[in-house]
Amino acid sequence: MAAKKTRIAIVGYGNVGRGVRAAIAANSDMRLQGIISRNPERVRAELPDVPIFRADDEKRWRARLKADVAILCGGSAEDLPDQGPYFARFFCTVDSFDTHADIPDYYKKMNAVARRAGTACIISTGWDPGTFSLERVLADAFFPGASQYTFWGRGVSQGHSDAARRVQGVKDARQYTIPIKSAIDEVRSGSRPRLAARAKHKRRVYVVPAPGADYESIAHAIKTMPKYYADYETEVIFITANEMKRSHAAYPHAGFVLSSSQTGRGNKALIEYRCEWDSNPEATGGILVAHARAAHRLRRERRTGAFTILDLPAAYFSPRSARDLLANFV
Amino acid sequence: MAAKKTRIAIVGYGNVGRGVRAAIAANSDMRLQGIISRNPERVRAELPDVPIFRADDEKRWRARLKADVAILCGGSAEDLPDQGPYFARFFCTVDSFDTHADIPDYYKKMNAVARRAGTACIISTGWDPGTFSLERVLADAFFPGASQYTFWGRGVSQGHSDAARRVQGVKDARQYTIPIKSAIDEVRSGSRPRLAARAKHKRRVYVVPAPGADYESIAHAIKTMPKYYADYETEVIFITANEMKRSHAAYPHAGFVLSSSQTGRGNKALIEYRCEWDSNPEATGGILVAHARAAHRLRRERRTGAFTILDLPAAYFSPRSARDLLANFV
Repeated sequence: MAAKKTRIAIVGYGNVGRGVRAAIAANSDMRLQGIISRNPERVRAELPDVPIFRADDEKRWRARLKADVAILCGGSAEDLPDQGPYFARFFCTVDSFDTHADIPDYYKKMNAVARRAGTACIISTGWDPGTFSLERVLADAFFPGASQYTFWGRGVSQGHSDAARRVQGVKDARQYTIPIKSAIDEVRSGSRPRLAARAKHKRRVYVVPAPGADYESIAHAIKTMPKYYADYETEVIFITANEMKRSHAAYPHAGFVLSSSQTGRGNKALIEYRCEWDSNPEATGGILVAHARAAHRLRRERRTGAFTILDLPAAYFSPRSARDLLANFV
Repeated sequence: MAAKKTRIAIVGYGNVGRGVRAAIAANSDMRLQGIISRNPERVRAELPDVPIFRADDEKRWRARLKADVAILCGGSAEDLPDQGPYFARFFCTVDSFDTHADIPDYYKKMNAVARRAGTACIISTGWDPGTFSLERVLADAFFPGASQYTFWGRGVSQGHSDAARRVQGVKDARQYTIPIKSAIDEVRSGSRPRLAARAKHKRRVYVVPAPGADYESIAHAIKTMPKYYADYETEVIFITANEMKRSHAAYPHAGFVLSSSQTGRGNKALIEYRCEWDSNPEATGGILVAHARAAHRLRRERRTGAFTILDLPAAYFSPRSARDLLANFV
């Protein structure tokens, strides 16, 4: 165990930021050093005992916030493309940048900044991208040519909920991604089918309509929305604001990666990695905090630049000593 | 992709050795360079086109066998404690030393020899110890205090089959380890029970009795055998030699690690890693060969000594380029 705690800054205090805070509290070698927010008053009201800094007050947080690692909890669309390279100049960072197509560019940018600044920045982690990426690479390495299937759900997708919320007449919306059981069973049997998007997942949207809204046209607008819904069987269910609050306040999620292959003469070899979270932001927080431990270790070893979960030995995530791991976990 | 193939030597050609050979054939960046065996005539008869070396003819294989990595396929009880340190002097090695209590000592010995020899030796890998160790460490790092459960089966345990075979009056025996469904369901529900050995697994032994053997005393001797059977509910089933050959020639196995934890205020966080092999030796072979790729890379980076799966980034196992992994797997 490191005698000195790893000092963490949280950048962005929404659901994931709260999850990270809970995870820091669960790790005795970690300390929350402060929070950087665009809305410091709101955060201060929630956390009166934590140093809170206004994001644009760079001078103040550079002078007062002594952190080993900043965990960037902003969104991939709006926040991280700028926040990542910006904060990488000042701190080792961990983020969950998840716009898959843009990851190589983001890596390049982060790597350049971090090398120049002498920081270690772990990008695109959490569970997908993150642990699911790791499992895809491992199973692909063990069984070349394996067919890989990723299923998500049952759980809330923030992006799909937001998209439904933008439809006219929608006051609030919550989207559940639901994996289709027959597809799961087929894949688990080892049969290696080709599965279209709609064969793997369906979507269920709970909508609180605005007063006087037209239900038919809301349902139609959601179900035909390109990219988000058009490729799936989508069910739209209208509920009251009270019901939304009572039954859909949590952010559960789940998912699994299944790698299906054959060895020798047609012998089945299956690997399934599955996770199930009552609270997606809290579980994600746990994974991000373990990455902060790894980033801090990289920095102490003077290894700088951008990294992904694929570059990190499992031992780097663990608070345990090499001796403990060897004796009790191998 | 490396232009030059990694040249593999197999040491010990039993079930796992055969599995490794099949896995080398499935990996286009690997080449089987030769086999070292205590019984070269038998292996030569099976593989007329592969260079076979007698284990004790050190002079000959040192002169003629140019391998980057030797995969040691001997047993943990009799072979590896000597073979590991011996071959680590000449080759980078990969082995599946699985006597859990002795792993720290074995690591120490291998580390000393490998450092002196300038080789990279990955010990105690496969699926358990191996990928299961990795998953235990990751989940423990993400969710400190997680309760972890490892279940094995349904599948053949070589050690338990051998033990039953040593009972007087037993001509042949095959033992299946069977996980108990109610225990699995309980653990998957997130309830975190304490489970005694007999609550997790039961054992079924198929026995071919010698002519005139006493069935009752065989069954009694097996069921009361300390360490192997006494702590479990054990079923003994007598069959003919033909039936053994027809129905129990394969070596299927399976198992999973389940980590059960809570985040925040009592929110369930579960991770399950499950594998299912029609052929345990072939699947193990696939994992060992990916480790040979990692050992070769460590050696090229002049990192020498002993390593476990916990010390290795996932990218080291993969034949894919960093660019490919970043673009298509993260």
